[in-house]
Amino acid sequence: MSYSIAVSGASGYAGGEVLRLLAGHPEVEIGAVTAHSSAGERLGSLQPHLLPLADRLISETTAENLAGHDVVVLALPHGASGELAAQLGEDTLVIDAAADHRLESATAWEQFYGSAHQGTWPYGLPELPGQRQRLRAARRIAVPGCYPTTILLGLAPAFAAGLLEGADVVIVAATGTSGAGKSTKPHLLGSEVMGGMSPYGVGGVHRHTPEIEQGLRQVSGAEVTVSFTPTLAPMPRGILATSTARLASGASAAALREAYAAQYEDEPFVHLLPEGQWPTTKQVVGSNHVTVQLAVDERTGRVIVSSASDNLTKGTAGGAVQSMNLALGLPETTGLNLLGVSP
Amino acid sequence: MSYSIAVSGASGYAGGEVLRLLAGHPEVEIGAVTAHSSAGERLGSLQPHLLPLADRLISETTAENLAGHDVVVLALPHGASGELAAQLGEDTLVIDAAADHRLESATAWEQFYGSAHQGTWPYGLPELPGQRQRLRAARRIAVPGCYPTTILLGLAPAFAAGLLEGADVVIVAATGTSGAGKSTKPHLLGSEVMGGMSPYGVGGVHRHTPEIEQGLRQVSGAEVTVSFTPTLAPMPRGILATSTARLASGASAAALREAYAAQYEDEPFVHLLPEGQWPTTKQVVGSNHVTVQLAVDERTGRVIVSSASDNLTKGTAGGAVQSMNLALGLPETTGLNLLGVSP
Amino acid sequence: MSYSIAVSGASGYAGGEVLRLLAGHPEVEIGAVTAHSSAGERLGSLQPHLLPLADRLISETTAENLAGHDVVVLALPHGASGELAAQLGEDTLVIDAAADHRLESATAWEQFYGSAHQGTWPYGLPELPGQRQRLRAARRIAVPGCYPTTILLGLAPAFAAGLLEGADVVIVAATGTSGAGKSTKPHLLGSEVMGGMSPYGVGGVHRHTPEIEQGLRQVSGAEVTVSFTPTLAPMPRGILATSTARLASGASAAALREAYAAQYEDEPFVHLLPEGQWPTTKQVVGSNHVTVQLAVDERTGRVIVSSASDNLTKGTAGGAVQSMNLALGLPETTGLNLLGVSP
Amino acid sequence: MSYSIAVSGASGYAGGEVLRLLAGHPEVEIGAVTAHSSAGERLGSLQPHLLPLADRLISETTAENLAGHDVVVLALPHGASGELAAQLGEDTLVIDAAADHRLESATAWEQFYGSAHQGTWPYGLPELPGQRQRLRAARRIAVPGCYPTTILLGLAPAFAAGLLEGADVVIVAATGTSGAGKSTKPHLLGSEVMGGMSPYGVGGVHRHTPEIEQGLRQVSGAEVTVSFTPTLAPMPRGILATSTARLASGASAAALREAYAAQYEDEPFVHLLPEGQWPTTKQVVGSNHVTVQLAVDERTGRVIVSSASDNLTKGTAGGAVQSMNLALGLPETTGLNLLGVSP
Repeated sequence: MSYSIAVSGASGYAGGEVLRLLAGHPEVEIGAVTAHSSAGERLGSLQPHLLPLADRLISETTAENLAGHDVVVLALPHGASGELAAQLGEDTLVIDAAADHRLESATAWEQFYGSAHQGTWPYGLPELPGQRQRLRAARRIAVPGCYPTTILLGLAPAFAAGLLEGADVVIVAATGTSGAGKSTKPHLLGSEVMGGMSPYGVGGVHRHTPEIEQGLRQVSGAEVTVSFTPTLAPMPRGILATSTARLASGASAAALREAYAAQYEDEPFVHLLPEGQWPTTKQVVGSNHVTVQLAVDERTGRVIVSSASDNLTKGTAGGAVQSMNLALGLPETTGLNLLGVSP
Repeated sequence: MSYSIAVSGASGYAGGEVLRLLAGHPEVEIGAVTAHSSAGERLGSLQPHLLPLADRLISETTAENLAGHDVVVLALPHGASGELAAQLGEDTLVIDAAADHRLESATAWEQFYGSAHQGTWPYGLPELPGQRQRLRAARRIAVPGCYPTTILLGLAPAFAAGLLEGADVVIVAATGTSGAGKSTKPHLLGSEVMGGMSPYGVGGVHRHTPEIEQGLRQVSGAEVTVSFTPTLAPMPRGILATSTARLASGASAAALREAYAAQYEDEPFVHLLPEGQWPTTKQVVGSNHVTVQLAVDERTGRVIVSSASDNLTKGTAGGAVQSMNLALGLPETTGLNLLGVSP
Repeated sequence: MSYSIAVSGASGYAGGEVLRLLAGHPEVEIGAVTAHSSAGERLGSLQPHLLPLADRLISETTAENLAGHDVVVLALPHGASGELAAQLGEDTLVIDAAADHRLESATAWEQFYGSAHQGTWPYGLPELPGQRQRLRAARRIAVPGCYPTTILLGLAPAFAAGLLEGADVVIVAATGTSGAGKSTKPHLLGSEVMGGMSPYGVGGVHRHTPEIEQGLRQVSGAEVTVSFTPTLAPMPRGILATSTARLASGASAAALREAYAAQYEDEPFVHLLPEGQWPTTKQVVGSNHVTVQLAVDERTGRVIVSSASDNLTKGTAGGAVQSMNLALGLPETTGLNLLGVSP
Repeated sequence: MSYSIAVSGASGYAGGEVLRLLAGHPEVEIGAVTAHSSAGERLGSLQPHLLPLADRLISETTAENLAGHDVVVLALPHGASGELAAQLGEDTLVIDAAADHRLESATAWEQFYGSAHQGTWPYGLPELPGQRQRLRAARRIAVPGCYPTTILLGLAPAFAAGLLEGADVVIVAATGTSGAGKSTKPHLLGSEVMGGMSPYGVGGVHRHTPEIEQGLRQVSGAEVTVSFTPTLAPMPRGILATSTARLASGASAAALREAYAAQYEDEPFVHLLPEGQWPTTKQVVGSNHVTVQLAVDERTGRVIVSSASDNLTKGTAGGAVQSMNLALGLPETTGLNLLGVSP
């Protein structure tokens, strides 16, 4: 049997990646493909790499056009999904790639997004403890942010095992430019991007900060405070996160390694690399994998965890499909890339 | 039923791409994975993106190790495949990604490669007229070069229809750096490559020149003379070929367009783009597609054809798998990517 | 003595490069710095690399603001300079980086630009035969296009010496993305540009075509027909041109080499590289140099000339300053970079 | 008067950048240009961007060849400079771009470099308190590492003013590939570098760690412990450092800003950017500048400082020339680029 699926935001990078994965997914049939300003155009003129879908026409993003599918993927700017979802049937599986329903704290939402909280949906990161089970019954799924996905998978085993202090976590991450979307801002021009790196959202103001803290709090059962600095790197895809926290009293490097090995042993998409091999975003481009490595700096008492993902795949569209598979009762890896494109 | 397959040259870019495709191919089982200087190492340390194959051990490239498989892919420097193939059974399907058995003319081989000609194998470009049929019965297949693949698919319909003059074809093409292989030469360092472009093999000396001429001669049934200049571009993958030839007397732009549309209408991997849309290597990265567009310059009487491919996929490993599928009687697209990874 | 100079278009790439060079020029003093939509802003917010000029305020581009300087550089879209120049005194040195006054043929102008011809100004390419002398007395200078600069300097010695046929010149060139300016079009986003190459303006429609033909006609004294295909490369700066033409009857490789050596021997900015060394855009980034190399393809009878420049420096702002120096009676190399920034 | 200067390591990136700057320096005359494996070659074949020096011949790096110059710049792997310097006269100004003489602690040297300590030379970072004066009389100068230069200039004002805690400084930095030198290692190939980021030297083992700690200790007068993680970014040049430390009790954002403004007000090469503008490596490429910005994260109590430099210019060769200027009694900015090359 095949599930019908509608994809909104089809002209953007997130929507394009969702379509790339779904076009190769054996159990779904792509129905409506919607967008806003490009409604009426051929998909091929906006997503020239989706050659098998090139002749599809883009329709307007309306609840009417999205209705009548088994699954609806919303790849829209935040603020749009709440209202749309309310107009879709309760047994429609709605997957929101935007931030609207990720945060449990209305206070945090209002502080970081400046609008009214729209409620919380099951969080689409199956590798977090207990989360896979929750997604199996879900009809509404909030896809995690690309940074939180990469960082939480980097830190979760250590926090779950109580091996890190939550008081002073410091994270610096680099993202490829697709993380900033397809908006035509001057600083995202190729001429500006190539050959340069710069930080943005510095000082705890990036909206992924409360999402990272929420995830770590849930995993560790205690408060976690995160200083998070994102940077923009000259590459189209990929996130490399460097996450550091102080080793908890009594914890050891061996215990840490064991915690990661145990938690990720059976995961199809998250990999603790062999000792001595460090993650590189190149190894995961186009795939749904996250690679992880860690080191203990005995001099400073800090643990440094490096984790890499493709922000558009596992960080967005792949994570969405993985959660969709769970919610539909399909094998979790169905239609998902296990092989990155490198070099 | 599943075919066993051995891959030599597994540490290089061509071998890595063959393995990437085969690891996702539903009808084959990867057997021996061989290389030379890295024999004994984990595949994961040399090809960190092949995560599902990371724990495979690389064995030495010997006929002994390659024997006993249904299919053997040779991704070695030219000069090595003739001898190895001779030691493999005649009913083993041997696919050579190197140049050794591409050229029919011993003279051309000796002139451009400076060694003794090793004979000619069926040429693995199914989209050329008559070629698909030949590959169905083949037990030896010569995978075309990445430039010839891209250029021949760009020019073949026009030459097959007699719409271009063969006397003065001028081609300039740009390749990503993986086309130069994994050899650690100073000019291939990232610091040298990023931000710069340069030509190489200028003046008719590039070894793909006689291969391009041979292909066009076969297609057109007449002599074709090609001035070919390759350039190295700051990107890991992709070939963009700009091929120009004089419009034959009596030929028209409409007839040209019709010839391309007719020849590629049913091809799964080669696409004449809609008028006004030009190929970009981004749209084919990681996929087995080739995109084509053309224009007639009335002022000069020249036709300009632009064609784009991924040099490692359709230009090497994907072409190899496509031909393998034909020779094994499998559907031609089995295990091949129809969706490029972009942006 | 110091010349006062005004720069319009200061928010764009051409204007930014003019300012970069002028800020290091010992004989000028930068006066008005003007733009349109960014008037009123600090220069540092638009051109963050011009640190010594960061606190300059941008004023509106009006004849009033530009008047009263010894020199005015116009780095505006074509169509704007004619009217502005008419309002500036006849003894003001006006240097136009746009195309308006490059073409001598009103017919060619109207065909390629679709507007009324504004007349012809002395052409700012001192290395062309006779051109240096003309620029010494000029009060109006048309800065050549970046492609014509690179291509004409690549082909001029051969055409001047009558060693190439003008009937069927074929040129393919790659440009860095700054050649497309700072306009925020989707295909110029970093995500789209990095990792990909594509052609544009194919089929003889690029506006630099008549400018190239005009230059070659003047140099050779005969008609020249050019098929020109530009491509966009994943790098911020640089042009690599591959220009081919048929060797004239009786011409030899030795004669060609001699012609280039003789013409460029005393040029400070144009270099015939030693045999075997080919141009790379990396070697000229940020400098006013053009490097040239050539080969004769005996099989096809074509000469292939490779030339490289920085499209923003010698191709635009450096060419402007070089011509300005001549017109002001200063040493030609004053304030111009002789050392590219590499790697 | 003109100083004669010899440059060793002329085939590498550091040596090439020293030569680029010296070739434009009005008070020096380049004498011997030496290297090891490329002795006997034309400089133009190894550093094709140094066109005015292309015909210089490279001689062997020996004390004999380096002797007899007023200044000798050593751009060699660490371990080589001590012995060479000992053979050069005491009144020769010897500038060592390697690490050998940077550390004061023999213990730290031995721990991080695994060889015998060669003594300590004046540290070539004039912007550190008191350092400019020391360099004026120096005949031996140790050029700081590229990371320490960028990080120390980012953190020094805050530590000098006692506004940060030294107990738990966390730094993550990204470097362009030229920071890894010209050695032909597989992971530095363009195909591997483009499109990817990865960490290296994780866990406090990078050799710049003790150098950073030493600098901060000198500035603050107290112990400082640094967790430092370097990453490799897909760009040829540039360092972007994200340095965080806890705000000292009683310190305020305003006091911090004031400390930076005061310390850098008169510095020609170090710039506190206007509030809201963040450093980007693009703005300093090819120049001797360092740009700095900071934010206080009130939620976490951490200060985040971002600083950007060109690792080859201010981070190596420009820093060397700046210190040389001081030691020779020349104006400090002589021959140094004040204008980055961007885009």
